[in-house]
Amino acid sequence: MPPFPSAVVIREVGLRDGLQSIQTILSTQQKIEWIAAAHAAGQREIEVGSFVPARLLPQLADTAELVAYAKTLPDLRVSVLVPNLKGAERAIDSRADLMLVPLSASHAHSLANLRKTPDEVVAEVARMRAARDAAGSQTLIEGGIGTAFGCTIQGAVDQSEVLRCMQALLDAGADRVSIADTVGYASPAAVRDLFEKARRIAGERFWCGHFHDTRGLALANVYAALGTGVARFDATLAGIGGCPHAPGASGNASSEDLAFMLADMGIDTGIDIEQLLALRARVAQWLPNETLRGTLWLAGLPKTFQQRAIQTAIA
Amino acid sequence: MPPFPSAVVIREVGLRDGLQSIQTILSTQQKIEWIAAAHAAGQREIEVGSFVPARLLPQLADTAELVAYAKTLPDLRVSVLVPNLKGAERAIDSRADLMLVPLSASHAHSLANLRKTPDEVVAEVARMRAARDAAGSQTLIEGGIGTAFGCTIQGAVDQSEVLRCMQALLDAGADRVSIADTVGYASPAAVRDLFEKARRIAGERFWCGHFHDTRGLALANVYAALGTGVARFDATLAGIGGCPHAPGASGNASSEDLAFMLADMGIDTGIDIEQLLALRARVAQWLPNETLRGTLWLAGLPKTFQQRAIQTAIA
Repeated sequence: MPPFPSAVVIREVGLRDGLQSIQTILSTQQKIEWIAAAHAAGQREIEVGSFVPARLLPQLADTAELVAYAKTLPDLRVSVLVPNLKGAERAIDSRADLMLVPLSASHAHSLANLRKTPDEVVAEVARMRAARDAAGSQTLIEGGIGTAFGCTIQGAVDQSEVLRCMQALLDAGADRVSIADTVGYASPAAVRDLFEKARRIAGERFWCGHFHDTRGLALANVYAALGTGVARFDATLAGIGGCPHAPGASGNASSEDLAFMLADMGIDTGIDIEQLLALRARVAQWLPNETLRGTLWLAGLPKTFQQRAIQTAIA
Repeated sequence: MPPFPSAVVIREVGLRDGLQSIQTILSTQQKIEWIAAAHAAGQREIEVGSFVPARLLPQLADTAELVAYAKTLPDLRVSVLVPNLKGAERAIDSRADLMLVPLSASHAHSLANLRKTPDEVVAEVARMRAARDAAGSQTLIEGGIGTAFGCTIQGAVDQSEVLRCMQALLDAGADRVSIADTVGYASPAAVRDLFEKARRIAGERFWCGHFHDTRGLALANVYAALGTGVARFDATLAGIGGCPHAPGASGNASSEDLAFMLADMGIDTGIDIEQLLALRARVAQWLPNETLRGTLWLAGLPKTFQQRAIQTAIA
């Protein structure tokens, strides 16, 4: 096991993966407050929304506005999700720093959720790359391989298929690739094994891990992934989120719990945990009818816990 | 990191650490049903109760009866907790296979909870050892070092003090030692570090890890501990439990979630997870007013998950 990374980025995806999975619709002003407070707490990468048709996800219809606001904040990487070329064009126009293109390694989940096969997504990424380059845009393209450990429709997903998709995404022009346990099928040994292989394929372009807490293993899976040198993880404030195709699935790794685990391990995240907990309390007030998760908000920080001095934010 | 152990024992402590922390009092008959079903599901080590004065913990007053019943089941290691020499004498009389003596590495917690200093507990262990040997008894003595990562009264606990107590317990005649994060202060990096050092002191006599899920890290902590070669962990069905001196603290590692994590890692626990989930549903009916925890009961096993053939139970 290599040494743990000295710094880790927690990418806040609550405004996208969280809000798309719940009933409550936050106002644009509330989302802007959330982004501002997350940035003030030290978060340096935020997925602010998704460029999907507003009729499909009305709760994310203000994504362009949120990108425009978030781009005014210093040292913040502004991400969006894009399902197709049309969304990528909007992301490029918005000047988002990064656009994540989801690909489902499970064919069954891919057809149900994206209405495309994995290889059709790869072909779309090639078109996005051409469009990005033609526009002279700096927007990074991240190919996000979901259901990488299995899904509720198909069950197990072959590791070889995940790695094949990863290579295909890189060949098609993705700048980054990431691996997501979309519905909470991963366990730490499987994470360690797959992430080690993915690192050998993609090196530093293997960008991010994304875990759900469906079976209580999100943080254990992050810990296993840390040992493979990956230093960026998606998480959502209060663990909100889920997946419409995963009945019984619970939310994402909780940003505040993850920030605590990393801080207690001596790993710099740039995040002030007390501020993040204060933001959680505020967002919880906006979501009185939703299931919120996480444990730190209830237990509090350990007595005499002292966060090490926060280092320079990680690029 | 050494390879993971091929087999791990989950010691069920729900009948002691769980039931002592909740309001509901189960009948002896219910507890016997629980023990029988846990044994039928493949659990091979169960802490059935505690030899403390019945006026202090009336819910555990039937411990001797439970030991007598559990001793009739084949291949089951029957454990009890004993706070002092008097309890140890009762454990020896009961013919329990193992008695766990709690020691708090936090002096403040030790005085509040046990009304003894750690060194007074060590001296009591020496008296227990003498009594055990004088009786010609086979009951193993396990010194369980609690609040090993900190506590809510004192805050941080020095690693050196934990290791000093461990050496003192071994010197006093404890057959086994274990480490408990009584109130949920551990994080995986701290676990790995302390457990590696403990293994160097106690070798195979370092017997067991005990984690609470106060900050969502119980399973991540087990995973970190597995890498140090420890192959036995306490857990409670439905994660019930807590600590009277830890406000806001949540329960133990959940037996069923832990059994799933280990099974998915290819580690043999001897446990049939479906049977354990059925037992959880039954116990949940007995505890309608208690906070139960864990995630697997809600999410279910992953589709196409196949538990590897259960090997011979681990001695």
